[in-house]
Amino acid sequence: MAEVCSLVADTIRREKLLRPRQKVVAAVSGGADSLCLLDCLARLGYPVIVAHLDHQLRPDSPEDARFVLEIAQIYGLPAVVAREEVRSFAGGGFSLEEAARFVRYRFLVRVAREHRARVIATGHTADDHVETILMHFIRGAGPEGLRGISPRTDFEAWAGLPEAAGLTLVRPLLALSRAQTIEHCARVGLVPREDSSNTDPAFFRNRLRHELLPILEGYNPGIREVLKRTGRVMRDQAELTLALAEAAWVEVARPAGKLVLALRTGPFLAQPRAVQCTLLRKALIHLRPGERDLGLETIERAQAFVSAPPRSHELPLVAGIEMVHLGNEVLLAEVGARPTLPDYPQLTSERQRRLEVPGGVALACGWRIEARLQRLSASQRGGWLRKPGNDTAALDADVLREPLSVRPPRAGDRIQPLGMEGTAKVADLLVNLHVPRAARSHWPLVSAGDEIVWVAGLRMAHPARLTVRSRRALILHLIRPKGQ
Amino acid sequence: MAEVCSLVADTIRREKLLRPRQKVVAAVSGGADSLCLLDCLARLGYPVIVAHLDHQLRPDSPEDARFVLEIAQIYGLPAVVAREEVRSFAGGGFSLEEAARFVRYRFLVRVAREHRARVIATGHTADDHVETILMHFIRGAGPEGLRGISPRTDFEAWAGLPEAAGLTLVRPLLALSRAQTIEHCARVGLVPREDSSNTDPAFFRNRLRHELLPILEGYNPGIREVLKRTGRVMRDQAELTLALAEAAWVEVARPAGKLVLALRTGPFLAQPRAVQCTLLRKALIHLRPGERDLGLETIERAQAFVSAPPRSHELPLVAGIEMVHLGNEVLLAEVGARPTLPDYPQLTSERQRRLEVPGGVALACGWRIEARLQRLSASQRGGWLRKPGNDTAALDADVLREPLSVRPPRAGDRIQPLGMEGTAKVADLLVNLHVPRAARSHWPLVSAGDEIVWVAGLRMAHPARLTVRSRRALILHLIRPKGQ
Repeated sequence: MAEVCSLVADTIRREKLLRPRQKVVAAVSGGADSLCLLDCLARLGYPVIVAHLDHQLRPDSPEDARFVLEIAQIYGLPAVVAREEVRSFAGGGFSLEEAARFVRYRFLVRVAREHRARVIATGHTADDHVETILMHFIRGAGPEGLRGISPRTDFEAWAGLPEAAGLTLVRPLLALSRAQTIEHCARVGLVPREDSSNTDPAFFRNRLRHELLPILEGYNPGIREVLKRTGRVMRDQAELTLALAEAAWVEVARPAGKLVLALRTGPFLAQPRAVQCTLLRKALIHLRPGERDLGLETIERAQAFVSAPPRSHELPLVAGIEMVHLGNEVLLAEVGARPTLPDYPQLTSERQRRLEVPGGVALACGWRIEARLQRLSASQRGGWLRKPGNDTAALDADVLREPLSVRPPRAGDRIQPLGMEGTAKVADLLVNLHVPRAARSHWPLVSAGDEIVWVAGLRMAHPARLTVRSRRALILHLIRPKGQ
Repeated sequence: MAEVCSLVADTIRREKLLRPRQKVVAAVSGGADSLCLLDCLARLGYPVIVAHLDHQLRPDSPEDARFVLEIAQIYGLPAVVAREEVRSFAGGGFSLEEAARFVRYRFLVRVAREHRARVIATGHTADDHVETILMHFIRGAGPEGLRGISPRTDFEAWAGLPEAAGLTLVRPLLALSRAQTIEHCARVGLVPREDSSNTDPAFFRNRLRHELLPILEGYNPGIREVLKRTGRVMRDQAELTLALAEAAWVEVARPAGKLVLALRTGPFLAQPRAVQCTLLRKALIHLRPGERDLGLETIERAQAFVSAPPRSHELPLVAGIEMVHLGNEVLLAEVGARPTLPDYPQLTSERQRRLEVPGGVALACGWRIEARLQRLSASQRGGWLRKPGNDTAALDADVLREPLSVRPPRAGDRIQPLGMEGTAKVADLLVNLHVPRAARSHWPLVSAGDEIVWVAGLRMAHPARLTVRSRRALILHLIRPKGQ
């Protein structure tokens, strides 16, 4: 008893899990692990709040809840018991396990908030840790997975719950084996309730525990110690790459709107590949906090997309996130999200806006379109012969219909580009001029009446060109943001 | 056929294994993998030298040798076949597998030297790679092990053979499965000889191949792909920590004599723990090139020894290497090796040397002991009352016997330290004054006749002290190297 308690105290001290007498919510299912957790925390003098969620997945679950309430009463500890219909949360891409986890996390956060506690403790043991490492190895994982269960985790990032901000999840029993928790319960007279699902071979984790680990012990009797050591090495590796990725983050990543992140290709590729992969993981977690589906395969596809010239400019990645190549940047964005693209002229909305002369229209990120009239002498007229694709266009003011507007492309828009015989679809023009897809939908067009007379910064309309008969020019300027 | 050859060509190009038409020694056992290697390299136009070693471990091994010679003849390639009694190399801490590897490596190096080739190719396939990763996982390994088989390796570091300097070991078949090599052989009409030891379950690797991998496929049908991906991630991790360790090496490590390396504790501990472990691995490989026994457990013990204040100042580590704490440094040394210790005054040999007055004796690393005589006035005599342990000692020249010498401690040496009543063993004095063990055997003592009068820099002998009657002082100086 004393030994188990002092092992728990050692872990708490070494890993800085709790300050002396710090309030802590203990997640107690009623099994040996969580009863051992409750008993040790109470003996070590921590003010424990007992939290139990009835997931209503087994017929005897209400009895578990009553049992935990009784135990809390015996220890004289406050307890919160709640019931949730977990099954109704499952479905829609949400497995039963995921649903249970989500509901449980939300419950624990609520209990912590109500009791003004900032730490939540769970009864994970060294056996859970070893099984987790093995599970990640079988499913495929990098150092983040192969490090196993961390003694302390930021709950918000872990659970993907913004309401969990500032809460920490701790595992004070990580140095104990499951057998030690059972033994401890027996010694202090606690009779745990066994969760029948812990032996159900339908659960992958139970198969690892009861079938695969014993098989592996036939190959190396010290496999459990080996897995713990692997976990320590991988924790060091994960901490190293995370520290390097965090140091590189500001230079590499640019927030580019709601659910959009831009990665600067140059600084990204200057990092070692291990750090590149951690940056991508960090970026994806930034967009999809709590997403558990960030397998190595996803990270590898993303890394290959940034580092190799892609055949396609877009890559559907995972969980509704796509990657888009934009020359110097790669966007990670929710499909359909509007990125801010400071390198391209972009309208801030789809609304058509009047262009006054003289006057101008403000675009996103400091870009502008400006318009003014100019009377032309013969020499000036010649001087306005400029090469296409320029930031300035000069049109014959007397052939333009009213009103002048700035608006985004619409389906079916056409223009006869300067010097061309026929007309072209504006959509095709943007593609052919290598405008990234993400920048096309809000590219500014200047129209005169119903006619498009300038695809800003790219092409003007042939019929609106200056001729030797032109007497007044409409001068359009695409003004870049300062510093570009 | 074409497909397999072009996969091999891809690997050669991607991993930069061979320049076009570069001479290459192919290790050919006669099995499907190595025949496929031979055939592909020949078809791709590389000038191949076929190398086969008869390990004499199976009765049919001479037939293998004849078979390989025939094949080489058919291809019109030069071939070298040799025979070695591998069993006689085993024993003495050398397993049969290790002995076979050592003998094989030495043979391949010899063939490469004779044919002026700088690259040696082996027929390792993706199956070998996957099995290696799994083997390391079961036995316990960090990223260096979990990355599996590298496409190219520096042969000298890998084999621990100085005569292999400048040679590279390459594995052009790493993208092929074993089944593909068998299929390729069948297509081109090669009938491989099967090595019966490949199915012998007494070999750990065969058990992994035939038993464990199929079991793991029951947990994840894609386990082979998962293991390859794990290998790629670990390769990135290993390259990262190795690059960081190499960058830190000059600041952290100091060559400190034959088979001795000193690690500077401060700069070492300033590194992330993953890099610390890589530095230790690098240091151990530096001292024991080719050592295969550098398990995680060894590295962890070494890391703990440097980072935590040790109860003992020495730690036997692995393969006759020990670690020694020396204040600002930790030595990694072959047991019994003489470290150079620039922070301590050390004699360069065990020889006794005459100390002339005036004159001096040079010690290791720029330290010196100097001696001179000084006539004393009454005021000077008082001025020479100095605290013990100083770099200068003043003795009564008229009570000292001849001759004056400098020598290391010998068993039974005693001294009556200044201000003490009795005598003490010099050996105990050095221990009590916290002289590291490594620095004790060559600590300089000054003797007058048979009497030790000064333990340099630490204590002088009470009977040789200055008194009010002293008229001449012998002044001894311990001179530190410049810059200390």
